[in-house]
Amino acid sequence: MTALPGMYGDIKLIAGRACPNLAQEIAIYLSRKSWRRIRLSKCEISQFPNENIYVQLGESVRGQDVYIIQTMSKPVNDHLMELLIIMDAVRRDSAGRITAVIPHMSYARSDRKDKPRTPITARLVAEMIQLAGADRFITIDLHAGQVQGFFSIPGDVLTAFHILSKHIEKRRVPNLVVVAADVGYAKDARNWARQFDAPLAIVEKRRTGSSTEALTLVGDVSGRNVLIVDDEVDTGGTLCEAVKILRKNGAQDIYVAFTHPTFSPPFGERYRLIKNDVKEFICTNTLPMSAEFERGNVTVLSVAELLGEVIRRAHLGLSVGRMFNE
Amino acid sequence: MTALPGMYGDIKLIAGRACPNLAQEIAIYLSRKSWRRIRLSKCEISQFPNENIYVQLGESVRGQDVYIIQTMSKPVNDHLMELLIIMDAVRRDSAGRITAVIPHMSYARSDRKDKPRTPITARLVAEMIQLAGADRFITIDLHAGQVQGFFSIPGDVLTAFHILSKHIEKRRVPNLVVVAADVGYAKDARNWARQFDAPLAIVEKRRTGSSTEALTLVGDVSGRNVLIVDDEVDTGGTLCEAVKILRKNGAQDIYVAFTHPTFSPPFGERYRLIKNDVKEFICTNTLPMSAEFERGNVTVLSVAELLGEVIRRAHLGLSVGRMFNE
Amino acid sequence: MTALPGMYGDIKLIAGRACPNLAQEIAIYLSRKSWRRIRLSKCEISQFPNENIYVQLGESVRGQDVYIIQTMSKPVNDHLMELLIIMDAVRRDSAGRITAVIPHMSYARSDRKDKPRTPITARLVAEMIQLAGADRFITIDLHAGQVQGFFSIPGDVLTAFHILSKHIEKRRVPNLVVVAADVGYAKDARNWARQFDAPLAIVEKRRTGSSTEALTLVGDVSGRNVLIVDDEVDTGGTLCEAVKILRKNGAQDIYVAFTHPTFSPPFGERYRLIKNDVKEFICTNTLPMSAEFERGNVTVLSVAELLGEVIRRAHLGLSVGRMFNE
Amino acid sequence: MTALPGMYGDIKLIAGRACPNLAQEIAIYLSRKSWRRIRLSKCEISQFPNENIYVQLGESVRGQDVYIIQTMSKPVNDHLMELLIIMDAVRRDSAGRITAVIPHMSYARSDRKDKPRTPITARLVAEMIQLAGADRFITIDLHAGQVQGFFSIPGDVLTAFHILSKHIEKRRVPNLVVVAADVGYAKDARNWARQFDAPLAIVEKRRTGSSTEALTLVGDVSGRNVLIVDDEVDTGGTLCEAVKILRKNGAQDIYVAFTHPTFSPPFGERYRLIKNDVKEFICTNTLPMSAEFERGNVTVLSVAELLGEVIRRAHLGLSVGRMFNE
Amino acid sequence: MTALPGMYGDIKLIAGRACPNLAQEIAIYLSRKSWRRIRLSKCEISQFPNENIYVQLGESVRGQDVYIIQTMSKPVNDHLMELLIIMDAVRRDSAGRITAVIPHMSYARSDRKDKPRTPITARLVAEMIQLAGADRFITIDLHAGQVQGFFSIPGDVLTAFHILSKHIEKRRVPNLVVVAADVGYAKDARNWARQFDAPLAIVEKRRTGSSTEALTLVGDVSGRNVLIVDDEVDTGGTLCEAVKILRKNGAQDIYVAFTHPTFSPPFGERYRLIKNDVKEFICTNTLPMSAEFERGNVTVLSVAELLGEVIRRAHLGLSVGRMFNE
Amino acid sequence: MTALPGMYGDIKLIAGRACPNLAQEIAIYLSRKSWRRIRLSKCEISQFPNENIYVQLGESVRGQDVYIIQTMSKPVNDHLMELLIIMDAVRRDSAGRITAVIPHMSYARSDRKDKPRTPITARLVAEMIQLAGADRFITIDLHAGQVQGFFSIPGDVLTAFHILSKHIEKRRVPNLVVVAADVGYAKDARNWARQFDAPLAIVEKRRTGSSTEALTLVGDVSGRNVLIVDDEVDTGGTLCEAVKILRKNGAQDIYVAFTHPTFSPPFGERYRLIKNDVKEFICTNTLPMSAEFERGNVTVLSVAELLGEVIRRAHLGLSVGRMFNE
Repeated sequence: MTALPGMYGDIKLIAGRACPNLAQEIAIYLSRKSWRRIRLSKCEISQFPNENIYVQLGESVRGQDVYIIQTMSKPVNDHLMELLIIMDAVRRDSAGRITAVIPHMSYARSDRKDKPRTPITARLVAEMIQLAGADRFITIDLHAGQVQGFFSIPGDVLTAFHILSKHIEKRRVPNLVVVAADVGYAKDARNWARQFDAPLAIVEKRRTGSSTEALTLVGDVSGRNVLIVDDEVDTGGTLCEAVKILRKNGAQDIYVAFTHPTFSPPFGERYRLIKNDVKEFICTNTLPMSAEFERGNVTVLSVAELLGEVIRRAHLGLSVGRMFNE
Repeated sequence: MTALPGMYGDIKLIAGRACPNLAQEIAIYLSRKSWRRIRLSKCEISQFPNENIYVQLGESVRGQDVYIIQTMSKPVNDHLMELLIIMDAVRRDSAGRITAVIPHMSYARSDRKDKPRTPITARLVAEMIQLAGADRFITIDLHAGQVQGFFSIPGDVLTAFHILSKHIEKRRVPNLVVVAADVGYAKDARNWARQFDAPLAIVEKRRTGSSTEALTLVGDVSGRNVLIVDDEVDTGGTLCEAVKILRKNGAQDIYVAFTHPTFSPPFGERYRLIKNDVKEFICTNTLPMSAEFERGNVTVLSVAELLGEVIRRAHLGLSVGRMFNE
Repeated sequence: MTALPGMYGDIKLIAGRACPNLAQEIAIYLSRKSWRRIRLSKCEISQFPNENIYVQLGESVRGQDVYIIQTMSKPVNDHLMELLIIMDAVRRDSAGRITAVIPHMSYARSDRKDKPRTPITARLVAEMIQLAGADRFITIDLHAGQVQGFFSIPGDVLTAFHILSKHIEKRRVPNLVVVAADVGYAKDARNWARQFDAPLAIVEKRRTGSSTEALTLVGDVSGRNVLIVDDEVDTGGTLCEAVKILRKNGAQDIYVAFTHPTFSPPFGERYRLIKNDVKEFICTNTLPMSAEFERGNVTVLSVAELLGEVIRRAHLGLSVGRMFNE
Repeated sequence: MTALPGMYGDIKLIAGRACPNLAQEIAIYLSRKSWRRIRLSKCEISQFPNENIYVQLGESVRGQDVYIIQTMSKPVNDHLMELLIIMDAVRRDSAGRITAVIPHMSYARSDRKDKPRTPITARLVAEMIQLAGADRFITIDLHAGQVQGFFSIPGDVLTAFHILSKHIEKRRVPNLVVVAADVGYAKDARNWARQFDAPLAIVEKRRTGSSTEALTLVGDVSGRNVLIVDDEVDTGGTLCEAVKILRKNGAQDIYVAFTHPTFSPPFGERYRLIKNDVKEFICTNTLPMSAEFERGNVTVLSVAELLGEVIRRAHLGLSVGRMFNE
Repeated sequence: MTALPGMYGDIKLIAGRACPNLAQEIAIYLSRKSWRRIRLSKCEISQFPNENIYVQLGESVRGQDVYIIQTMSKPVNDHLMELLIIMDAVRRDSAGRITAVIPHMSYARSDRKDKPRTPITARLVAEMIQLAGADRFITIDLHAGQVQGFFSIPGDVLTAFHILSKHIEKRRVPNLVVVAADVGYAKDARNWARQFDAPLAIVEKRRTGSSTEALTLVGDVSGRNVLIVDDEVDTGGTLCEAVKILRKNGAQDIYVAFTHPTFSPPFGERYRLIKNDVKEFICTNTLPMSAEFERGNVTVLSVAELLGEVIRRAHLGLSVGRMFNE
Repeated sequence: MTALPGMYGDIKLIAGRACPNLAQEIAIYLSRKSWRRIRLSKCEISQFPNENIYVQLGESVRGQDVYIIQTMSKPVNDHLMELLIIMDAVRRDSAGRITAVIPHMSYARSDRKDKPRTPITARLVAEMIQLAGADRFITIDLHAGQVQGFFSIPGDVLTAFHILSKHIEKRRVPNLVVVAADVGYAKDARNWARQFDAPLAIVEKRRTGSSTEALTLVGDVSGRNVLIVDDEVDTGGTLCEAVKILRKNGAQDIYVAFTHPTFSPPFGERYRLIKNDVKEFICTNTLPMSAEFERGNVTVLSVAELLGEVIRRAHLGLSVGRMFNE
């Protein structure tokens, strides 16, 4: 009743240099779910002394269903360019179908013109990915859902929400309140609140003078345990201030859950500042992470099964929605 | 120092049948700002008995800088189709440049896949507008700023914020709190709050049982005057409930400010229910409105000057950002 | 020797709201020709109070060979928009191949610029269908064959000629003359005349004064039975006058055969006027029809088998031309 | 009030090798209408021994409004290719705007799939012209008006009707009947009939046996003077038979008017056969013609003023429709 | 482990009129490698008296994997146009995949702007091939490898190097020096030199006066046997002079190896001049050749197996690179 | 007689961060040639902590003729991305025309598939530049002229040949021989040889064993002064060996001329090795250079006047070819 296996050719996994471990985990998952071993294809990637990235596929992808796994970790522009060049090589080798698997899509915050005379880089990046040959894309927790509409190719925009919330449920935290550290994340935070049947609070920046701003807390956290939620943690600035104000307002245990550990400088310093105020940081491996944090109280949950299963279903022409009972 | 007048040819205004009055006002504004009278061009628009829309331009647009003014009021699909057909006629008559002026962009709420197996109609509409020949577009207060990124042509996404807030400032309401009737509008509501140096509150839907939901109010309104803000008012359902809960929480005078008076059924009935609880509804004429509401306590502010000035600047190659000191 | 079944994935039928009965008939035909039942897929289509059409597919179409059945009946623009939005949803759900099955293509008469400064809407509609994601299209009796060239995607432009002429042959009308009610249909009418080995006559409008026109009959019908042929009957104006002039010129029994019963107002009144002068109206169900006419002397022949068989062959990669011994 | 001269840059005329005389006439017309001399630009066109066409423009076209005049006379494919290559050179030299002026568009009869598994070459040619860089096109009397819709760029599809009919009016032929030599031209023939306030007749091919066809005449020509009209005369086969049957049916003087003298073999022989039965052949110079025919009774009217005036208006951004009081 | 046979549908070969013999040889090779006979599909190609090329496929290609074999021999523009029109017919008949097999790509020398205001016709031709519907292309020894980058579709650019060099190896010529007859071919000549472990010499044109040029030889050939290599021999002018100067510099036996026998006039005369100075001309049948040369000392090696094997592998989704141990 | 100034709007220069000095020099040149000062426009470019590049134009470019000056120096991918993002911002601000001025185009060596399963990155980069909004491009000495054909937009591919050769002429070096350090540059080297009326020699790599290669010199340099020419010097490896072999073969003074000083590691070390063997290195400032080399014997000639003059002519619609008497 389902599409024939092989409709898009054999499956082929190719990993860029941005997240080789995650790619390997995906290959292992797929091998486990298959009657034969599925390896990462050989693919020589190097950079000439003039910094030009060079790619040569180690085996033919002619008529195959190719999945290129490359997250947009740092150095961001190099990793993006590497993804594009791999796709060009794959396309010109007459692949049957190309899917760009991008666990973390960078530039997604540049999704609108907040000020005049600015770019919408997220749209530009989406079009570059299409230009280079992607027939489809798979990604996780876009900063804004609308970024999916920047693509004209179909894609699976997944969420780590189930992975993260399942972990937190296991912690059985009583008397919980969900907090959006930024008003722009309030809508998503509501979904978290619903999941845990908890009230919602919002940390909000308000102008207090001509050029000064102060944080205020909309909602009540006094004497309650708090779960701060966000899609990513970048420099940790907002988070740092949120933790402080929550403490000041009488919050008990503080948990922080987010999908993408961008962790840009000076996140390290800030982490050391608030580490003791936060019971647990929970995030995923959409981006590789310095060992320091994992040795601390950062729990990293893997998205390999999620991505692997979606790749499996996409390859076989099975419903992805059904994974989530949708 | 600025581009030569006429760089894109003479200016030409064409009005569809969706907002003839607004189009007329724009023409009057432009005439006032020009050394000669700028009329709406003749354009015969009719519908054959088989409902096919037919357009014949009454005068040549060859090498002209054409602005087609058509809002996406009801019947929405007819007005969209009419816009596209006018553009096709203008394009095939070798216009110099075509700008679609769409005060209210419908379908903008379909900007992401909230559920699986759904369309992103806003992207589709954006591409249809480009397909039919638009070189640029002008619109007001998109439901989400990201919709601008659905276009690959440049556009001016304006806001009625200044028009609306200036009007409210004149009311000199003391002790104000800004309320977002929906958590999704919280971020924009914060901008309103900043403008009036007022606190923010949010009306939020929370699940109270397996299938029941109740509104809660995040923030405090007791004894204060309230300004509910939103981008549009459609059936008025959310608004109605918000007004009730605000009253229950001790709000004093209630004002409602929004850009687009979509006013879909059964808005009329709801309006009659809450009319006395609301001191003033303030909106714009991006969509035409039944006289009933204007006779009531709905104040309609015109966007004609805003659109007219942007058209003037776009035609002359002048900065639009400078209008807003940006 | 033929392409493998499943080359484009499993077959999937989706019906818009314009011709559910015809879609159901097609599904039944396909089930009959298949070893398993082929149902219309579940697809929720609704319109929000703001008239925005909303679509959610009830089941995954990932990697499937999808046929979307939607005729362009009234309300024409809503039905066109609905078709496009369904296609966008199907495309974004990663369908294997999308075929738009449009029994009657509206706007096809707007296929050339008869006057200056007019659109070519048929081309615009063709491009909109492609834009929304169609890989192929299937339609019946385009107003002009050239409209096929407005598409760059492949398509099957079928004809109801065989269905209609077979029915008429069963009537065994002696002494027949074929009449084109309009000079623009003369070329097609010749094919009808050849089929019945009958002479051809043409009803032609001629100018009789500066602004008056009179019908003349080119050819001879006196004492003969007449078959008026056309691609569609819209308001029935031309037909009405043709019947009158044929009567005046001594025609005996009059039959009218046409593919598309557009039947726009005031067709109903005209129908009542000429109903008794016409022995039988023969048409197809490419457009749904008011029961009034079927109760009268309008015979409706179904195109379900024609469309079903072409869908079957397209799905299996079999020749469609061979159906007609071509 | 009209667009600035120079809005698309200076005017530039480039002639291919297909109709240098016509191109020269156009340049002369434009010089006469201008305050300065407008020459054909130098453009070296040659063919290498390997038949590859080579083009080098003799002067820069940077930022100019370029009109490339090339009809699709024989050798048709060479002349088409030459047009495309000239356009590529002009485009890559950063022309401001490119207009392909193609007095006779070949392949226009391949505008629909009359049989299965055939191309629609007219669409292909239209797209090739766009691909090579045309921003606009100008042509005369397309075989079917719908071919204009095969272009997505704007174009001016002109008619030689006024030129031809004005000439015939001067002949003051009494008692005229207009004859379409082919039923497919019946609709256009009606326009001729209206112009001369004359009745219409149609020569029609009818099947007389399983594989034989005979011409019949629909309408009456006995004792009347006849004007046969068509868009082009190719091999003259249809025309030859039409003349014979008209004679047999008692026609008096016979005139033949058509736009394009394609005159493919064996037209020469046929011409000699019917030359004496036809009082005058009237056509235009959209295609160059052997001197033999002009020495005979073929009158060639020039389209140079028509094309020149349209070029002038297109360049200045003036209405073309107004030339014809439209 | 490889893609399913039939993933792109059944294989179908269609031959244009440019190289029917080569096409036939390919069909024979494929039949030999297959369990069933693979014929050239029936395809009616003709030219109307007006020179318009007409194509009708003799059988359905719906859902098939179609290979259109057409070299760009003389008349070059006709053969190119024929290829495009066949593709349009195949595309519109809903082929599954279309591969243009073009043994010799003409216009490939027009790959850069050596002078200002010239076209890059090779890019234009590449885009025309894509426009007409090619999903892939196969060709042999492009004049410059970069021409592959003019296509955005994938392609297999093969080389006859192995075929030619294997033949020469069989001749066991001692004391060989490889000569590039043109400095532009020096880089490829080096590959030849490496293959035979031979030194390289280059014939170079040098200016000797204000307008005179003389050939000089860079490198040493005295007393050695010489292999002149090039990608094609066109008029033979360069070759002729190279042979003379090599003789003058004391070369012994001279062999000439090249892929494409373009042989444009006056090659015949030149051939007769140098025939006795050259021991053997070795080339392939990418272009058909007059029998005169084969009767002389021109050895023609067939590329049918090379093309046939690549077609076979492309159809089955097998690696092409592996053919060459790459 | 030339296009009106302002046809594409006012001129606007924007500099990326890759070559601010060169951009400044261009602005100075243009100011000198103009009646008013032409400044580099303000443009804020920064990188967020997450490495996302952010751009905000400091002034409106609406309807302006914008030139974005950005070379592809290291870090190459960041500078490319920066160029694209600037263009997106400029495009979305409704610029009149956008020209990408890219003194050195990186990735240009990836212009063909030398091996199977590799990308053609130069084509990808060309398309990315077009995608981001470039209407035209200007660059200097592409690695292969064919790369121009990777663009479908028009462009000016300039050469520094005149700048470099003029400088060398001033050195009045007697008894000169021109040497191509690589056989792939032999064709261009011939043009140098012609300019100086000098003989040509080529340094060539030859295989001497199964895996060893040795340099050989084709041609004679003994007792002569040598000018080594190339388009760029990257790591200096080839150059180093060439210098050695030239010395060994008795060359006297050695000069090295090339356009692009890519100077990738370990060029510095190699430079120190051969510095004393080379009398002068002559190159341009298409790429910024470490001060070490300028303090040594590297002469840097500016391309600012060349680029500035071409920008001036492009802006005014003047012939660029005429600059070079073409």
